[in-house]
Amino acid sequence: MEKPALEKVNLAEKFDQINDYWNPRIAGELNGQQVKLAKFQGPFEWHHHEHEDEFFLVVKGQFEMHLRDKVVTLQPGEFLIVPRGVEHRPVANEEAEVLMFEPASTVNTGNLENSERTRKNLERL
Amino acid sequence: MEKPALEKVNLAEKFDQINDYWNPRIAGELNGQQVKLAKFQGPFEWHHHEHEDEFFLVVKGQFEMHLRDKVVTLQPGEFLIVPRGVEHRPVANEEAEVLMFEPASTVNTGNLENSERTRKNLERL
Repeated sequence: MEKPALEKVNLAEKFDQINDYWNPRIAGELNGQQVKLAKFQGPFEWHHHEHEDEFFLVVKGQFEMHLRDKVVTLQPGEFLIVPRGVEHRPVANEEAEVLMFEPASTVNTGNLENSERTRKNLERL
Repeated sequence: MEKPALEKVNLAEKFDQINDYWNPRIAGELNGQQVKLAKFQGPFEWHHHEHEDEFFLVVKGQFEMHLRDKVVTLQPGEFLIVPRGVEHRPVANEEAEVLMFEPASTVNTGNLENSERTRKNLERL
C-alpha cells in the first residue's frame, strides 16, 4: 500500500476538483481504510455491503439516507454509520459533499457489483 | 464488538458535551476502527504509534501538528493523516474540536503508555 503523504488535505479544495456525482475519490489512506470524497446528487441505488461498515459525514449540502424502515436526513457536521448488511439508498435532493471512511476494499454499489454506477479503481485527489 | 446504532451523530451536539481537553470520546465504531472526538487546548506530548495511522480532522478552532521536520497548521475542514511510527505533537493555541479516526486499539499517547495524559477505557458519547 502506498504510504500516505504527510501533507494536510483541505476538503473544500478537494471538492472543487470534483465535477461529477456518485464517483468517490480517494483523499487518504490509513490502516487499510480509505478516506473518500464524493458529490451526491439525485437518488442512488439500493444496495448493501456484505462485510463492510460505512461512515458518511456531510461537509456541505445535505442528503437523505433511506433505510428500509426510516429515512435519516444528514446536514453538514452530521455523520451516520451504516453497518454491514444493512440496505441503504442515499438520495440527495440538492448537491451534497460527503466524506466517507471505509475499507479500501469497499465498492460504492456494494452487492450490485456491475451496476452502471459501480466505480472501481478510484482516482486519487 | 457493540453493533453501532443506526442513528446519526451531530458533531456540534457531541462537542457540547465535552468539557475537558485531550480526553477522546468514542462517537462511532466501524470495521474495527473508532471515530473519536476530543477538544484540544495547549501543547500535548511528543509521541508516536507503532502500528497505527491516525486521522485528524478539525471541526472547529485550529491546531498545529508538530512533526520533527515541520509544523502543519490545521484549520476547520482540513485533515492530516499521521502514519505509524511518525513522531508528532499536537499543539492548540486556542481550543480546537477534532474528529479522529483510528483503530479501536489506539491509545492517545501512543508509545508513552502511562503518561498523565494517557486515556484508556474511553467514554462513549
